[in-house]
Amino acid sequence: MSAAVGEIPESMRCSVLRAAGELEVQQRAVPRPAPREVLVRVGAVGTCGSDVHYFTHGRIGRFVVREPLVLGHEPSGRIVAVGTGVDASRIGQRVSIEPGVPCRRCRYCHRGEYNLCPDIAFFATPPFDGAFSEYVTIADDFAHPVPDSVSDDAAALLEPLSVAIWANRKAGTGLGSRVLVAGAGPIGLLVAQVARVQGAAQVVVTDLDAGRRATALDNGATDVLDPRDGDPAARGVDVDVFVDCSGAPPAVTAGIGAVRAGGTVVLVGMGADEMTLPVSSLQSREITLTGTFRYAETWPTAVQLAASGAVDLDRLVTAHVDLDHVADALSPDPAAAHVKIVVRP
Amino acid sequence: MSAAVGEIPESMRCSVLRAAGELEVQQRAVPRPAPREVLVRVGAVGTCGSDVHYFTHGRIGRFVVREPLVLGHEPSGRIVAVGTGVDASRIGQRVSIEPGVPCRRCRYCHRGEYNLCPDIAFFATPPFDGAFSEYVTIADDFAHPVPDSVSDDAAALLEPLSVAIWANRKAGTGLGSRVLVAGAGPIGLLVAQVARVQGAAQVVVTDLDAGRRATALDNGATDVLDPRDGDPAARGVDVDVFVDCSGAPPAVTAGIGAVRAGGTVVLVGMGADEMTLPVSSLQSREITLTGTFRYAETWPTAVQLAASGAVDLDRLVTAHVDLDHVADALSPDPAAAHVKIVVRP
Amino acid sequence: MSAAVGEIPESMRCSVLRAAGELEVQQRAVPRPAPREVLVRVGAVGTCGSDVHYFTHGRIGRFVVREPLVLGHEPSGRIVAVGTGVDASRIGQRVSIEPGVPCRRCRYCHRGEYNLCPDIAFFATPPFDGAFSEYVTIADDFAHPVPDSVSDDAAALLEPLSVAIWANRKAGTGLGSRVLVAGAGPIGLLVAQVARVQGAAQVVVTDLDAGRRATALDNGATDVLDPRDGDPAARGVDVDVFVDCSGAPPAVTAGIGAVRAGGTVVLVGMGADEMTLPVSSLQSREITLTGTFRYAETWPTAVQLAASGAVDLDRLVTAHVDLDHVADALSPDPAAAHVKIVVRP
Amino acid sequence: MSAAVGEIPESMRCSVLRAAGELEVQQRAVPRPAPREVLVRVGAVGTCGSDVHYFTHGRIGRFVVREPLVLGHEPSGRIVAVGTGVDASRIGQRVSIEPGVPCRRCRYCHRGEYNLCPDIAFFATPPFDGAFSEYVTIADDFAHPVPDSVSDDAAALLEPLSVAIWANRKAGTGLGSRVLVAGAGPIGLLVAQVARVQGAAQVVVTDLDAGRRATALDNGATDVLDPRDGDPAARGVDVDVFVDCSGAPPAVTAGIGAVRAGGTVVLVGMGADEMTLPVSSLQSREITLTGTFRYAETWPTAVQLAASGAVDLDRLVTAHVDLDHVADALSPDPAAAHVKIVVRP
Repeated sequence: MSAAVGEIPESMRCSVLRAAGELEVQQRAVPRPAPREVLVRVGAVGTCGSDVHYFTHGRIGRFVVREPLVLGHEPSGRIVAVGTGVDASRIGQRVSIEPGVPCRRCRYCHRGEYNLCPDIAFFATPPFDGAFSEYVTIADDFAHPVPDSVSDDAAALLEPLSVAIWANRKAGTGLGSRVLVAGAGPIGLLVAQVARVQGAAQVVVTDLDAGRRATALDNGATDVLDPRDGDPAARGVDVDVFVDCSGAPPAVTAGIGAVRAGGTVVLVGMGADEMTLPVSSLQSREITLTGTFRYAETWPTAVQLAASGAVDLDRLVTAHVDLDHVADALSPDPAAAHVKIVVRP
Repeated sequence: MSAAVGEIPESMRCSVLRAAGELEVQQRAVPRPAPREVLVRVGAVGTCGSDVHYFTHGRIGRFVVREPLVLGHEPSGRIVAVGTGVDASRIGQRVSIEPGVPCRRCRYCHRGEYNLCPDIAFFATPPFDGAFSEYVTIADDFAHPVPDSVSDDAAALLEPLSVAIWANRKAGTGLGSRVLVAGAGPIGLLVAQVARVQGAAQVVVTDLDAGRRATALDNGATDVLDPRDGDPAARGVDVDVFVDCSGAPPAVTAGIGAVRAGGTVVLVGMGADEMTLPVSSLQSREITLTGTFRYAETWPTAVQLAASGAVDLDRLVTAHVDLDHVADALSPDPAAAHVKIVVRP
Repeated sequence: MSAAVGEIPESMRCSVLRAAGELEVQQRAVPRPAPREVLVRVGAVGTCGSDVHYFTHGRIGRFVVREPLVLGHEPSGRIVAVGTGVDASRIGQRVSIEPGVPCRRCRYCHRGEYNLCPDIAFFATPPFDGAFSEYVTIADDFAHPVPDSVSDDAAALLEPLSVAIWANRKAGTGLGSRVLVAGAGPIGLLVAQVARVQGAAQVVVTDLDAGRRATALDNGATDVLDPRDGDPAARGVDVDVFVDCSGAPPAVTAGIGAVRAGGTVVLVGMGADEMTLPVSSLQSREITLTGTFRYAETWPTAVQLAASGAVDLDRLVTAHVDLDHVADALSPDPAAAHVKIVVRP
Repeated sequence: MSAAVGEIPESMRCSVLRAAGELEVQQRAVPRPAPREVLVRVGAVGTCGSDVHYFTHGRIGRFVVREPLVLGHEPSGRIVAVGTGVDASRIGQRVSIEPGVPCRRCRYCHRGEYNLCPDIAFFATPPFDGAFSEYVTIADDFAHPVPDSVSDDAAALLEPLSVAIWANRKAGTGLGSRVLVAGAGPIGLLVAQVARVQGAAQVVVTDLDAGRRATALDNGATDVLDPRDGDPAARGVDVDVFVDCSGAPPAVTAGIGAVRAGGTVVLVGMGADEMTLPVSSLQSREITLTGTFRYAETWPTAVQLAASGAVDLDRLVTAHVDLDHVADALSPDPAAAHVKIVVRP
């Protein structure tokens, strides 16, 4: 640690998941930044569906919580110390943390597809601790400076914004695109916002919940639909791109039906391992289907979108909790009632 | 009709499907080329699985044979007359016929995605007659000249070759690609051949039939596998691209499992309308899945591949029949025993 | 002509270029729509630098005015009659005319690159007459319907808007792009507007004229520069994309210097046949340079941008003239003093 | 250094450029591999035009030899020791060295465009020493294993092969491509070979030297032309892609003239800083022009091409020298008389 600013204590508080449903605030040593790392005093951490899932089930698919785990992978904060090789002038800088550091040496990293790196160390994914903590360390190039016009909350939410940027990139959203989004949770809302910023002509959002549909109209949607009123295609929806942010098989099937020949389907929402898909329809209309897994090199764009005001992140935050109340934020009921709950350590 | 050569009779023989299982040779008037069309004396017509399917079931999905239909959509021959607007010097030219003429005016046609044109007139697809006939007419730009080094049989087989070129184009096959092909029928064999010509490093072909696997090794495969011996992934196969030419759900699932993160799956073989797919695996590895529907602007490449000898089409032809014996060629049993049967009207 | 509405006279007035500097209003027969064509009563026609050039020099490069020529290639109007094969319900429809009809049969047309069709018939390009005329005919699919929210002037200006859409497409402008535009004429202003609609983070416009720079700030520019104050790169401009709409060699050289490694240069403005370029700089930074020639399949997007209000075209129109005063609009001096002059036949 | 094999001496011999024209064999300490580096006993090093240029002029553009510099950037050899973090089982492995290690942290590295990294440490480019030396160290992931079927010479020549792979990738060479290559030096020959492996239908190579043209016919060229006999376009050459490996302005201009509308020009050969180009022709035909600067993530493909025999590298080697005779290899006259001279330290 080549430099430090202010008082950095020896120990810190962090919220630790011991097993499904068991969160405990523990005292741990403040980590020291390794070479080319920075130490960040965490300001805000968004909560995400995956945190809720780990808290509820103790696992997500093949990732099982076997050792106590700190959750939270959407952090922002301020650099308070830097490791060797990092310019000490960065101390004091406000940053948004990109929470997965790849190996930098495999074929995926060499190609710029570092989200597919098999050795990526990703926050809050066993065995890597996350950010519901007072301090975290991160590689210097994954701590992205943000201007003061971007709040701590917004800086934290550059992570879900990155998911939305990536989804639109995979979808090929562009000037004049007609877009269908299933699911008006935080990701769906951000996919809609980003699609509009890219010049999409039409953004139709579907959600079962009337309140979420209303929120969608404030977040880029040009139209909203209740899936119970009939399939989008039957109601005249004809789009270039369908982005599923629901993970719900009926939404996926209905969405595919609304895509024009030659269009694109991007599956962002995680659901069942398997899904029955209308492959004959995909084939005869040459639709391209893919999914997204995190993101790569989206932060520069995300910072710009937040700083310019093109995307509004603060409006998504509907509640805050401190480290002692993380369990409240991760319980499924309140989580569903809110758009986004932010932890302030 | 601005010009003609030799004796063009008033009537001709053609093989007509009256209903499932009922083929009859009829005498019909020789068609006259409309403006910008040519009249072709048919030399050879490949038979295809879709012909077999129409003959057996009287329909393919939403395409139902309600009126008598001439089958056959892989024709070659010689131009014997031209309509107005076509240079008379083309009379006598040997040609391979691209059997679908699009509307040329819709958004798909304007974009060069004319295979997706909703108004395309495609041979042997109701209500459009095909080429098991002595003469056919076709738009002048869909009658592609072939040099004498390309036989009539090979000129007919530029159609399945186009399917294979298109599949590899969608797959992004290129220098050093590792490719898995499921199904060693004519399309699978040609996908393998074309992949090799494009510089694929490895082409693994799977088929249940030992004879077909052996044939694959003569047609571009670097390795062959019997699917009953275990999934390709379990046997160390790790590919950039998987092209399914089987339409068999177990092959599709196994194939997806062998694709690297970031790789591509192309579904060419037609099977069930719906299929249960491992979407979570597609998502977490960002695999792109698409299907192919015919082809667009592949003939110039196909002609070149055949003329240069880079691809060998004649070796795929294992039998010939005349117009009186089309039923023999379209009965499932002999069809399965052969690689490709060609009709010589 | 299968149908007609209202009174279509036998003859009409049109402005004819007899030689450089000689425009004359002549009486000509109203053309009849051929099959799949429509007859349009012209409402508005934008004037363009190429019209000015033909008027002044009697030629543009290899295109020489040898026979009397009607200029004008940015027309809008109302369909008053249709040829056979066109639905009569289109009569009365307001349309923007895409002024180049390709052959639909060559490799470029098949590929969707119809702007490169060697046999395209383009308005106001010898030997094809343009639209400074009361009536014109055009292929039905090149007469694009516009809603009433789009004025005649705006419908005419979908042509330069298409140039701008095409330039941005070639440039790969997208979310977060930093863009430099040289030249704040109509095309430069529209390139800037479109770039912003696509999510460009920064759009720097350079022009020698202070008034034009001020106009640029109302048309999408985030910054403007006077080239006499120093090269953009020397002043900290660092962009992903440079679009030249000036045709001026110093602007091109300076613009290339402001592009980041891996960035793109698009030359839209026509200037000298040859230009001395910093090829070593292009090579060592792997910059991609290309030019644009008209556009392909841009109208659907252009109509949407105008109809939604995302792009403002009416504000570009600074003067109107009638057929008797076309020469006034095409004289270099007034042309330079205006952003866009529209002819109302 | 966590492990070592055999006898690693304290000092080694290397050929050092003290100033233009002054090469001297010096004794230097054998370097120690840093963490995640390997130490390689150099087996073969190709000589390149840039080595010749440094030797002759003491500089290449902005890169000036101010301190004594070891030249050579095309090395192969055997790993004899590894730094911490590298599996000791790699000791003994034969490798081809990719001679530029990027910073891994900038935007270019994150995007997979690491050849554009401004902080790349590239062999034989001031201030970084090259490989005309008995031992070199390199990052573990830039020492690419080669099978025994690839000779030391061929393993060294994976570097120019990478240049050729990269050029074809930028050119978009693919199935059926028609390619023009100017210059039949080692790079031009390899561009031709690789184009053929990718399925190019036609590869025309131009060179002023009859011997080189003859060599080209053994290296993938389907046709060769003497530029003094007239421009390729005038002689009927019409290609999709033109790759200049000559750096000669007349060749570049002539090559551009032979490219079809919508085609691509790739400038690989370095020549003058500025060049007068036919921009109007580029614009009106929408030709894309770019250059190449080294390569990124080409070695896996290069290794496969050499190992499979698809590309023949050994045939390019026409002479060998030892460390005491590097000056002989770098003198312009012998360099021009040979295809490729290899240094064996």
